[in-house]
Amino acid sequence: MDTHTIDTADTPPPQPEEQTPWLTAREQRMWRAHLEVAKLLDYQLSRELQPHNLAINDYEILVVLSEAPDRRMRMTDLATATLQSKSRLSHQITRMETAGLVLRQECPGDRRGLYAHLTEHGWETMQQVAPDHVRSVRAHFIDRFTPEQLDAMYEALAPIADHLRGLRGKP
Amino acid sequence: MDTHTIDTADTPPPQPEEQTPWLTAREQRMWRAHLEVAKLLDYQLSRELQPHNLAINDYEILVVLSEAPDRRMRMTDLATATLQSKSRLSHQITRMETAGLVLRQECPGDRRGLYAHLTEHGWETMQQVAPDHVRSVRAHFIDRFTPEQLDAMYEALAPIADHLRGLRGKP
Repeated sequence: MDTHTIDTADTPPPQPEEQTPWLTAREQRMWRAHLEVAKLLDYQLSRELQPHNLAINDYEILVVLSEAPDRRMRMTDLATATLQSKSRLSHQITRMETAGLVLRQECPGDRRGLYAHLTEHGWETMQQVAPDHVRSVRAHFIDRFTPEQLDAMYEALAPIADHLRGLRGKP
Repeated sequence: MDTHTIDTADTPPPQPEEQTPWLTAREQRMWRAHLEVAKLLDYQLSRELQPHNLAINDYEILVVLSEAPDRRMRMTDLATATLQSKSRLSHQITRMETAGLVLRQECPGDRRGLYAHLTEHGWETMQQVAPDHVRSVRAHFIDRFTPEQLDAMYEALAPIADHLRGLRGKP
């Protein structure tokens, strides 16, 4: 029997999985602009932190811990806050401990609790570095938007951040 | 002489370096939304490429090479196109060579030229993976903007990408 004789009236052929349309030119240019800005900004900000001997992820840890009560956080919460895997964070905290910026401490009376604690040196380092870092963030990103663009960007991005945060950790 | 007697009329004290104002609450929320989306999107897209045994940077290399004439590029140009350091790219290409996705080739008659060449397997892999990846990009990012937001984002981000591209490689 050749394929032309297959009766498709009763048993329609399996539907191909619904096609996702390719990105249009307008979508594509925005997607590429987003990727480029994300990557290049990370590169530029990292570069401008180098004189302070800090990686950009180190700076983030300093900021998050400095805003936490008692300047310390449970390692698992710190991993969540900085959107990192626990193993990756653990390596990073080891490096930062060697540099004297943080301390790992067990919490008495809390068996689950291994904490990362900002040291005095870590706190001072953040204070010193913050003005330079803000200058970089303004020069290469924030000051390049009009106030209307700033708000429009926030309104577009915030629900996407919520969506992606919701997916994280789900199988 | 105590400090109050210093005559500041002739020699004004050195000006403190011009203060960069801190981010306002509106700037801060946008900055954090951008960082979160960049990081979480990278995480989610990477996760959805895992069943294909591809890292997100691998996928990018496949796309760039597939769009290049003869599906190959000089390593230095590939590093520029993918915004990576040459040493990092070199490691990545080694991994991808082991996976049979690309080949490194010397170009006869071009002493500078070490090329990365997309293999047939690399080409087929990209063809297979692309529809899934586009689906991910749409589901988690592109389809979450209105057409007006898409264009507004592009107009805001494109000049920043230009600015940052111009800085790259400069001391």
